[in-house]
Amino acid sequence: MEGEPLPESCVCRPIGVVRSSIKNRSEAPKQGGEGAPDAWLELVADVEPALDGIEPGDDLVILTWLDRSRRDILRVHPRGDPANPMAGVFATRSPDRPNPIGLHRVTVREIEGVRLKVGPIEALDGTPVLDIKPVLTNVNDV
Amino acid sequence: MEGEPLPESCVCRPIGVVRSSIKNRSEAPKQGGEGAPDAWLELVADVEPALDGIEPGDDLVILTWLDRSRRDILRVHPRGDPANPMAGVFATRSPDRPNPIGLHRVTVREIEGVRLKVGPIEALDGTPVLDIKPVLTNVNDV
Repeated sequence: MEGEPLPESCVCRPIGVVRSSIKNRSEAPKQGGEGAPDAWLELVADVEPALDGIEPGDDLVILTWLDRSRRDILRVHPRGDPANPMAGVFATRSPDRPNPIGLHRVTVREIEGVRLKVGPIEALDGTPVLDIKPVLTNVNDV
Repeated sequence: MEGEPLPESCVCRPIGVVRSSIKNRSEAPKQGGEGAPDAWLELVADVEPALDGIEPGDDLVILTWLDRSRRDILRVHPRGDPANPMAGVFATRSPDRPNPIGLHRVTVREIEGVRLKVGPIEALDGTPVLDIKPVLTNVNDV
């Protein structure tokens, strides 16, 4: 950064939590498409207007705060397999990373007010939800 | 949330900043693929080990903190066009949202130590960078 000040910290306010049958990391698949269950996103009532336009069947990107991750790990064996050579966490989807933000592509199954059933999703029960975005229509976009 | 405590705030520590020719929102395309330029990500020296394995030509997802966004806006006219009916921000890619985290899919052009030239990317000059992830090989994943 050579003399330029780092930007100040950025404080997220969770908009809800994941309610899942997955209770800890050892039970969680590496990605949603690898056998993860559906889960409920229980959002705070305040954000209900922000959901306007989301319907069952929509594909969404869910951003979460992976609160059981380590932020001081910069290199890992990809997929936790010691047979894989170490790589930087930015070259992997490891939950351990400086800012442990989870990125999950899901389909909406049901909506009940500010509760959304989505899946498949590998996030653990109790994981804070930070943001919800639509998947863009171009398959090359995210 | 019905009596359950909301999780505490989640504090991101920026890992760097975007250096772009785009200086303000009025100049920025809505998405990277809509004529956005390449930009440099200037990362902090500490995270260099986390970049191990990233090479020019790789497709990455960059997460940023959209620091010139409003967090109190829950409904917008999509793409800022008053002709579009209002929708909830979670059904749009509006930069104005409760947790203004930007999601940018880019290609790596060059790497110089902890500086990565990537693009196309619509983020504004000075935008904090939060995370870097590989694009998964399945086109349906993000």
